[in-house]
Amino acid sequence: MAEVKRLDAFFDPCSVAIIGATKKIDKAGHVIFRNFAANKSRGIFKGEIYPVNPNEESILGFRCYPSISEIPGEVEAIVVVVPAKIVPLIMEEAAAKKVKTAIIITSGFREVGNVALEEQIVATAKKAGTRILGPNCLGVYYSKTGVDTLFLPETKVLTTGDEVIATPRPMSGNIAIVTQSGAFGVAALDYLAGRQIGISKFVSFGNKCDVTESEMMHYLLFDKETRAILLYVEDIKHGREFLRVAGKVTLKKPIVALKAGRSAAGARAAASHTGAIAGADKIYSAAFEQSGVIRARDMEEFFDAGKALAMQPPALRRNIGVLTDAGGPGIMAVDECESNGLSVERFSDETLQKFQKLKDEGMLPKFAATGNPVDLTGSVTDDMYEVAADIMFQDPAIDGIILLGLHHLPALREKYIDSVGLVASRYSKPIVMCDIGETEMALYTRFRFDKLGIPSYPSPEDAARAMAALVNYGAYLRKNGCLDEYISEFLKKRNKP
Amino acid sequence: MAEVKRLDAFFDPCSVAIIGATKKIDKAGHVIFRNFAANKSRGIFKGEIYPVNPNEESILGFRCYPSISEIPGEVEAIVVVVPAKIVPLIMEEAAAKKVKTAIIITSGFREVGNVALEEQIVATAKKAGTRILGPNCLGVYYSKTGVDTLFLPETKVLTTGDEVIATPRPMSGNIAIVTQSGAFGVAALDYLAGRQIGISKFVSFGNKCDVTESEMMHYLLFDKETRAILLYVEDIKHGREFLRVAGKVTLKKPIVALKAGRSAAGARAAASHTGAIAGADKIYSAAFEQSGVIRARDMEEFFDAGKALAMQPPALRRNIGVLTDAGGPGIMAVDECESNGLSVERFSDETLQKFQKLKDEGMLPKFAATGNPVDLTGSVTDDMYEVAADIMFQDPAIDGIILLGLHHLPALREKYIDSVGLVASRYSKPIVMCDIGETEMALYTRFRFDKLGIPSYPSPEDAARAMAALVNYGAYLRKNGCLDEYISEFLKKRNKP
Repeated sequence: MAEVKRLDAFFDPCSVAIIGATKKIDKAGHVIFRNFAANKSRGIFKGEIYPVNPNEESILGFRCYPSISEIPGEVEAIVVVVPAKIVPLIMEEAAAKKVKTAIIITSGFREVGNVALEEQIVATAKKAGTRILGPNCLGVYYSKTGVDTLFLPETKVLTTGDEVIATPRPMSGNIAIVTQSGAFGVAALDYLAGRQIGISKFVSFGNKCDVTESEMMHYLLFDKETRAILLYVEDIKHGREFLRVAGKVTLKKPIVALKAGRSAAGARAAASHTGAIAGADKIYSAAFEQSGVIRARDMEEFFDAGKALAMQPPALRRNIGVLTDAGGPGIMAVDECESNGLSVERFSDETLQKFQKLKDEGMLPKFAATGNPVDLTGSVTDDMYEVAADIMFQDPAIDGIILLGLHHLPALREKYIDSVGLVASRYSKPIVMCDIGETEMALYTRFRFDKLGIPSYPSPEDAARAMAALVNYGAYLRKNGCLDEYISEFLKKRNKP
Repeated sequence: MAEVKRLDAFFDPCSVAIIGATKKIDKAGHVIFRNFAANKSRGIFKGEIYPVNPNEESILGFRCYPSISEIPGEVEAIVVVVPAKIVPLIMEEAAAKKVKTAIIITSGFREVGNVALEEQIVATAKKAGTRILGPNCLGVYYSKTGVDTLFLPETKVLTTGDEVIATPRPMSGNIAIVTQSGAFGVAALDYLAGRQIGISKFVSFGNKCDVTESEMMHYLLFDKETRAILLYVEDIKHGREFLRVAGKVTLKKPIVALKAGRSAAGARAAASHTGAIAGADKIYSAAFEQSGVIRARDMEEFFDAGKALAMQPPALRRNIGVLTDAGGPGIMAVDECESNGLSVERFSDETLQKFQKLKDEGMLPKFAATGNPVDLTGSVTDDMYEVAADIMFQDPAIDGIILLGLHHLPALREKYIDSVGLVASRYSKPIVMCDIGETEMALYTRFRFDKLGIPSYPSPEDAARAMAALVNYGAYLRKNGCLDEYISEFLKKRNKP
C-alpha cells in the first residue's frame, strides 16, 4: 500500500515544480504552468507551485527558480517540459531533492530510438525512488485537485475571430481514462465532455518507462472516485504483471480496453508509432478474456461500455427484455443482442398474462406486441413505460432491460423518464436506453436518462452492445464467485445520495 | 416511363385532398393539413389543397368538403387519415374522381390481421389506376414542393415551458430515405437533421399494399436530386422484382440497406410487427450482394455509408492510404480497414522518396512515419496535410484516402480544410475524414469538411467503414463493367457549381 500511496503525488501533490515553465504563450511550459496558477488562484489547487527556468525572474507573478535545488522547502512532484537531452540532469536534481513523482511530458526518447537516454533517467529515478509518468505523454488531469498538465490549447480562434473550445475538460465523474496515446487521450476528453460523461482521473502514460498501465490500474483499484477504467493501449510489455493486476482489479472494478494494432497492417503502424512490438493480437484477446478485461471493438463501443459499467450493475445472466415504442428499432436491438451472444426469449406465461391483463384493462394498446420485445406502438404514453418496465423487471427470467424511448410519438412526454428511473432504482438488474435523433428533444431525453444513472445511447445497436458489456462482465464475476458481492457493493454506492 | 411519371403525384401534386382533415390540434388529420396549408401560404406548396370532412365548414381558412366527389375540378392526390373501416369507401370515391395517388396513413390493416380490408382497397385502386402508398405509413416529405404528410409533432413543450424540436425536417440534399418503419423513418430524419445531412425525398411505405420498395427505388433512379438511396426494410415480399430493380438501380445510384430481423429472435419480433415472414437472413444477404445493394451492419453504418456514397466517387480498388496527425487513431483506422477487407500497404519506393524529400526540406517532421499510415505527429501544421495528401493521391497504388485531422494539436488551424478540399477536387479518388470530439472545434471541423463534399466522421473506425462502402460499391460497378462511366458521371455532377 505504501507504493500505492506514493503515486498520490501524481494526482494531489503538496508542492509541484514545473521544470521548463516559461512566459512564452505557445509553449507547453507556459500552458501547463498557467493551468496550475489558474487553479491555485481559484482555490482548486491547494499546494505550492514553483516555476523553474534559469532565464526568468518570475512567471505569472510567481517567483521563478533557476533549478529545483534552489527551491526552499519540499518539492513533492515535478512536471518536466525541457528538451530531452536536459532531462537526465533534471532527474539528478530531482533525486537530490527527494522528489516523489515526475511527469515527463518531453518526447524524443525510446519512441524515436533514443533508448539509452530513457534508460539513463529510469536508472537515476529508481535509485532515488522517484516515480516517473511518461516520457512522451500528456500526464494527468484531475479536476478535484486542479492538477492539469495538458498543454494543448483549451480554445482556438477561428479566422472569423470566434474563439471555440478545442480541448475541453470533462466534468467530474467516476470513469478513469488511462491511455498510452496522448492524442487519443485528448480526443477522449473531447468526446466525453461533449457527451457530458464525467471522469474521475485522466492519465496519459506515453512511453511508460516506469509507471505502467498495470500499476496505474492497481492505483485506481483503491481510488474511491473511480468505478470503471477505460484503458487505451498499443502494446503491453509485461504480460504476466498485466494478467495478475488486471485479474485482481476486475473483481472489483470493470476495465474496458481498446487495443489498437489488431490487424497486421495496424500492428506494423503501431510498431512505427511507439517502437514497441505489438505482438499477435490473439494473445491480447486471450489475456483480456482471462483477466476479465472487456475488449471494445472500436472507439464508440469503448466509451459506451465504460459508461454502462460505471452507471449500472452487471447482469446475472444473458436473457434480455426489450421494451420499445417503435417496432423497427426494437428489432434492431434484438438483432444486435443475438449478434453479441445475448438472448431475447419469449416471456414466461406468467409475464404474458400480466401484459394481457393490462391490455384488457386498457392500460396498454390492444395491438401491442408483448412477447418480448414489448412494443407499446405509436399509441405509447408515459404511464405505459412505467408499468411495462416494472413487469419486465419482476420476471426472474429477465436479466436486464433495453428500453427504446423514441420521443417522436405524439402522446409520449418526458414524465416517463423519472418514473422509469424510479422503477429501475427498485431492482438490481441493469437497464440501458436508446432514443434516436440528434436534435433538441433527443439530446434532452438522453441527457435526462444519463442524469438518473440510466446510460443512454443514440442507436439501438449501441444500447445492445452496452448491455452485452454488462452481461459479459456479470458472467466473468459469476465465474469468479464474486458477482453477488459486486452487485451489492455497487448498489450501496449507487443509492448513496 | 408513364408508370414512373405517375408516381410524381406523390411528390408534386397539382391538387391534394386531405381526407380526415380536422380542427382538433392533436389529430394527425390536423397536423397534416396544417403542414400543407403552411407550406402553401409560404409559397412552397404550389398546388390546390382541399380539406375533406363532412363535419366541418372550413379548416384553417380553407373551405372544407363533405366528400372528394364534391370538390370542384381535379384532385390529383389524396392523403387519407380516416379510420380503417371507412377507407374502402374513400377509395371508391377516389376512383370515381380519377385520383392518381393515395397516401394512406391510417393503420389497422394487414399489420393487425385485417388482410381482407387491405385487399379490398387494393382491388378498388387497381381498377381505377390509383396508386397507393401505405397503408400504416407516414407517407412523404419533400422539402422542395412542400409535401409533408408527417403527423408527428414538430416540437414538444417540456414541463419547464420550453418548446424544443422533436421531429425536425432535414435540409434539402441528395440522399433519399425509403423506409418500411415509420418510427425508424422519423428517427432517421432527426438524426440527419442534427448531423446536417440533406435529403432529396423521404418515403415511408408501411404495409406496401401497392407501391413497394422496388417501385420506389425505380422511381428514384430517375430522380435528378437523388444520388444515393437509404432503404430500411423488415421484409421483401417480391424477391425477384427486387433483384431485377435493385440490380438496375445500383448501376447508376448506390443503395444502402438496413435489413432488420437478421437474428432468429429479431425475425420473430419482425413477424409480430409487420405480419410478414421475414425469411432466412442469409437469403437477404445473398440478394443484396447479387444486386449490388450495400448492406449496413447497423444504424450508424447505414447513415455513414449513405453519406459517403452521396458525396464521394467509389474507389477503383481496395488499397487505402491513411493520413493522420495522431498515431493511435491512425492505427485504429488501419485496423478497421483490414477488418473490412481493405488493405493499407506500405507505399511504393517512389512515394516514400517523395516523403523523404519533404522531410529533408523540413516540410515534414523528421520523425514523421511515412510508410502508410503517414503520421504527421504532434508537430503537424496545415501545410503538411496539403502536401502529404497530394503525394498520396498521386500514388497509382492508392485507391482512396482516410484523413484523420485531430484538431487538438497546437499548430493545426482550419486552413488545411480548404486546401485539402482543393487537392481532393483535382483527383477522382475518394477521400473521407475523421476528427474525434463532440465539442465546438470538432463539430466545426467536421461540418466544414462535409460542406466541401468530404464526408466526416466522429471515429476512425466510422471513417474506415465508410471508405469500405466506397470500395465495395466500386468493386461491384467494376465487375459490371460500368465503374469508369459511373465515376465520370459522378465527377461531372460533383463539379457542377
